[in-house]
Amino acid sequence: MSFDLDRLHCAHERIRPYIHRTPVLTSSRLNEASGASLFFKCENFQKIGAFKARGATNAVFALDDATARRGVATHSSGNHGAAVARAAKLRGVPAHIVMPSNSAKVKIRAVESYGAHVVFCEPTEEAREATCADVIAKTGATLIHSFENENVIAGQGTAAVEFLEDVPDLDVIMCPVGGGGLLAGTAVAAKSIRPNIKAIAAEPANADDAAQSFRAGRRLVTQKKFTIADGLRTNIGEPNFAIVQRYVDDIVTVSEAAIISAMRTIWETMKIVIEPSAAVPYAAIQERAIGVKGKRVGIILTGGNVDLDALPWGSRAS
Amino acid sequence: MSFDLDRLHCAHERIRPYIHRTPVLTSSRLNEASGASLFFKCENFQKIGAFKARGATNAVFALDDATARRGVATHSSGNHGAAVARAAKLRGVPAHIVMPSNSAKVKIRAVESYGAHVVFCEPTEEAREATCADVIAKTGATLIHSFENENVIAGQGTAAVEFLEDVPDLDVIMCPVGGGGLLAGTAVAAKSIRPNIKAIAAEPANADDAAQSFRAGRRLVTQKKFTIADGLRTNIGEPNFAIVQRYVDDIVTVSEAAIISAMRTIWETMKIVIEPSAAVPYAAIQERAIGVKGKRVGIILTGGNVDLDALPWGSRAS
Repeated sequence: MSFDLDRLHCAHERIRPYIHRTPVLTSSRLNEASGASLFFKCENFQKIGAFKARGATNAVFALDDATARRGVATHSSGNHGAAVARAAKLRGVPAHIVMPSNSAKVKIRAVESYGAHVVFCEPTEEAREATCADVIAKTGATLIHSFENENVIAGQGTAAVEFLEDVPDLDVIMCPVGGGGLLAGTAVAAKSIRPNIKAIAAEPANADDAAQSFRAGRRLVTQKKFTIADGLRTNIGEPNFAIVQRYVDDIVTVSEAAIISAMRTIWETMKIVIEPSAAVPYAAIQERAIGVKGKRVGIILTGGNVDLDALPWGSRAS
Repeated sequence: MSFDLDRLHCAHERIRPYIHRTPVLTSSRLNEASGASLFFKCENFQKIGAFKARGATNAVFALDDATARRGVATHSSGNHGAAVARAAKLRGVPAHIVMPSNSAKVKIRAVESYGAHVVFCEPTEEAREATCADVIAKTGATLIHSFENENVIAGQGTAAVEFLEDVPDLDVIMCPVGGGGLLAGTAVAAKSIRPNIKAIAAEPANADDAAQSFRAGRRLVTQKKFTIADGLRTNIGEPNFAIVQRYVDDIVTVSEAAIISAMRTIWETMKIVIEPSAAVPYAAIQERAIGVKGKRVGIILTGGNVDLDALPWGSRAS
């Protein structure tokens, strides 16, 4: 898989009509608390409420007409499913989204609202992949994997392209890492545009396969504990890890308590809704897992899709 | 009390270094749901988390040096107290904030964080006014009333000035009404800049003194039931009502259920945190208390200070 800035700019041109150019927000309170200048790229305001709209749209629109007409398929319990469904609707082609039978109703409705065909399966990784393969065999649809796909990676990288257009002199760029689609795209974009920038990922300590792999110098499949950061439970992908090894400077890990605290701090201080996964980089700053004093730090807030009936800090209700 | 656009522009020049020029957001989903083009002026992103920073800053900075040096005082259980405390700190003069003894700890801490002197009193309107008068008698401080003050009204009107600079062709401008500081300032600004605009206020049905007064043609003090929109529990002020009679086109009322539903819709769809009072105008649109089909409607989202431990839709917790 080879990447360069041209490829990212081409992805950006392709998806521009279909995505938001999201704003960059700052907070004087969070700057004071961190001793740094923090910039937050608000992908929680993105279409479908998450950066995933970028990669899925790029991958679906990159298909040639004949291939696209046979449809697209993916498996996802989260934002990528909605992103592929929306992109297929925009392109006017069928979408088959395989979802675990225990998916949240709100996520199923989101996918269905774009007219996609939802196929339910047992809630295991094996069942998801087998069911998706089956759908593809029957329909001739093209798999749009949520991170092991170069057009998805290039699409996710467009957030960093915009970020560095708006704030060119960042010292550090941060995002969370799950499968590594966003991290790979971000790191390639940031290092190509600004070679001296540090690209740093943050990961829940309870699902730290990327951090462990990064230190070991080879991709490890690790045992995981539960993390509230539901977007980051997956293992880092093969091509993603190769890019991460080449372009990423560090991967830091954070506790569950730090994730919840960071999420709440951002809601209260910045008055924006972000999902737990999006809070992971700021958690690393708040928990001092990374030193940022005096630096200009860009953080990609990855999404804002959260169940308001089940917030992690509970509620006294009224 | 006389107002014109010069006065509002003068207020704007005065406070510009100390406030945010807040962004205007849109949502294709809410446009579809309403059949209108909705524009949201995000004063929840304002300093201290609410538009109140505008009026208080204007009033405090409008004082001559000798008067300012004797300090400022107000009574408030909410955002205005923090706004006056912050403005006084910026000007380098003492602030005395009278707060009911049962005020939320987070609000007390906010006022104290600006170095203001907090004076507690019994949680009644009479005790607040008496205690504040006492503080003023002892200190020589100047009262900065939260809405019956022309510099406060002019300051609040600067939100509408910015709004119409950013979206000049609004058909309707909406805000909630409590004491009427924001409404008076908004109506004067909007009608002066764009005479054909409709200025429409929204009020909780459970605290509808302004709507009743508007229909009666004279200021009524009415019986109130509890409303979750804590910023709108107060009666409309005397000078505020005079301006409202002259410049406002209508005042519509909404149910408590509509306020909670509108607040949740905005959190979920726009991914921003707003307080219940800020949801009242959109509640009127969602509840069809006002017809907006095909219109370009500007809504001032007044604030985002909400207790995340006591959200009105409860929580299953996790």
